Amino acid sequence: MGEFELIDKYFKFSSHAQGVSVGVGDDCALLAPTPGMQWAVSTDMLVEGRHFFADVDPFTLGQKSLAVNLSDLAATGAMPRGFTLSLSLPSVQEPWLAQFSKGLQDLSHRFGCPLVGGDTTRGPLCIGITVMGEVPSGQALLRSGAKAGDDLYVSGTLGDARAALLALQGELRLEPGVLSTIRHRLEAPTPRLSLGQRLRGLASAAMDLSDGLSGDLAKMMKASGTRAQLQTNWIGQSPAISPSLQTLDFETRLSLVASGGDDYELLFASPPGARAAIEALGAELQLSLTRVGEVMASSGALELDKINSGLVVFLDAHQQVLELKAQSFDHFS
Amino acid sequence: MGEFELIDKYFKFSSHAQGVSVGVGDDCALLAPTPGMQWAVSTDMLVEGRHFFADVDPFTLGQKSLAVNLSDLAATGAMPRGFTLSLSLPSVQEPWLAQFSKGLQDLSHRFGCPLVGGDTTRGPLCIGITVMGEVPSGQALLRSGAKAGDDLYVSGTLGDARAALLALQGELRLEPGVLSTIRHRLEAPTPRLSLGQRLRGLASAAMDLSDGLSGDLAKMMKASGTRAQLQTNWIGQSPAISPSLQTLDFETRLSLVASGGDDYELLFASPPGARAAIEALGAELQLSLTRVGEVMASSGALELDKINSGLVVFLDAHQQVLELKAQSFDHFS
Repeated sequence: MGEFELIDKYFKFSSHAQGVSVGVGDDCALLAPTPGMQWAVSTDMLVEGRHFFADVDPFTLGQKSLAVNLSDLAATGAMPRGFTLSLSLPSVQEPWLAQFSKGLQDLSHRFGCPLVGGDTTRGPLCIGITVMGEVPSGQALLRSGAKAGDDLYVSGTLGDARAALLALQGELRLEPGVLSTIRHRLEAPTPRLSLGQRLRGLASAAMDLSDGLSGDLAKMMKASGTRAQLQTNWIGQSPAISPSLQTLDFETRLSLVASGGDDYELLFASPPGARAAIEALGAELQLSLTRVGEVMASSGALELDKINSGLVVFLDAHQQVLELKAQSFDHFS
Repeated sequence: MGEFELIDKYFKFSSHAQGVSVGVGDDCALLAPTPGMQWAVSTDMLVEGRHFFADVDPFTLGQKSLAVNLSDLAATGAMPRGFTLSLSLPSVQEPWLAQFSKGLQDLSHRFGCPLVGGDTTRGPLCIGITVMGEVPSGQALLRSGAKAGDDLYVSGTLGDARAALLALQGELRLEPGVLSTIRHRLEAPTPRLSLGQRLRGLASAAMDLSDGLSGDLAKMMKASGTRAQLQTNWIGQSPAISPSLQTLDFETRLSLVASGGDDYELLFASPPGARAAIEALGAELQLSLTRVGEVMASSGALELDKINSGLVVFLDAHQQVLELKAQSFDHFS
């Protein structure tokens, strides 16, 4: 099967999407931006052996590839408009491609994000996706808006993806049945698009959690010129921890939550006056929104060259700083 | 060096670009579309061993990675607005990264296309770029607009890149000095952005030549529901062939021109009434625009499942059809 036949067969599923004048097949896709909106763009590359195992289910891989990109749009409060796909493949395996395409299509249809262009080539298995979305001008949620006194919230549950990864690698022992209930959080996370859009005007800052709470929060604090205190009481029994992980000891849960990574939940800051609105929003979206800490004023000179130094501290039950070596997951360290 | 330090050091060169509200560093980049314009998007992935040699000069690789993407904007008649970069690297080699970044920067500045977002990860050397541009609504040049009776033109010179590649691989012997004069056409092609923008309103169809004239023209004819006759007299001594390749025999030149690939010149169709305007445009841009053939009405049922069957014929000096096995370069055949 040739490159062009392959594209026709597996990657033209959005050819009649609304708002797409020209899709897959011409030199460029053409989209009509909505007046009054800013264009939001994000890109992510997933590489075999690094972001997924060679034997991963191609359907869930298709879902995850698009999900992690849509998660960036969610963090900005944007509505999806379309995505491009660059795919490098060692060989053409039709059953694999059919499933991968179906997984992409599933997310694409569920979140209204058509595939508008792409490129396929032979090479190591490597998936590059760029998503584009729109957000009303000036209303995008940024990392840099957090203010001293703001609450800090996380959506959903944290640590599941890393726990599943460690269990699959034989490095963490889970009770029977637990892996099967959390595995989908590693393989097919849900982008929090509705939440992100609803947080516009409510949150002062937001980002998606891809590299672990501790490191990601430090990035938000660095961008905002603030620091953060995180409570740890919620790392006990709380909606932010999957029930199936609550049997793990505290240290393990803390480590999964602080530096697990791959959560694809939203972290956001909001003024205390927004608490009732946020509670109502969580109830409406049927998504747990857990208050996990507080934004503090930057205390003078910060060592800004070290991402996490002093920007984020975890407090124990007695409000004492917990010693923690948790760092953001860094692809090159 | 960590991922974030690497991004700060080498990939934040566009942080103050005009029209970019938020660039590299947040979850999404934010750009303000210009009212009345459509958004044009294209993506390409370059893989080591497939699109470039491991020992390629990283400066020219940076240039080429962006150039081949800008070439797609050129073919649509769009003005660049920004690009995203996904980079998978086996390891962090600072001298390599510094040069690669400089090559990207060079093209970025020369053509006004800021780097607005990206992703880096460890993996096989793989470069994914998505470019975005703008074109006045309804004025984009498409592949599907060619009409029977239109002239067919190519810009610049064809076959240089393939000749250079074959010479580097030891499969083509060139006169001394020739390789050094055509090698830059393989390693750092020039995107024809000014030409593309000036062809709006003049050309009925356009595309960029990346896979070879014969196959690419067949794609345009398929999209337009037409077929094409190409003369071969211009494959002799003409501005469409580099002087340094004019010493090669006719068959070799024809093969380089018809199926060489990697030309990154524009192919376009335009009504005969536009000839004077096109001649003047070439003179103004100091770029050869060579009339190479003619669009014909589709003669009944075409075997559209075979890309090139009957859609494109080359004629010899006596207007007889030349037998030619030239096909578009296909990454999976």
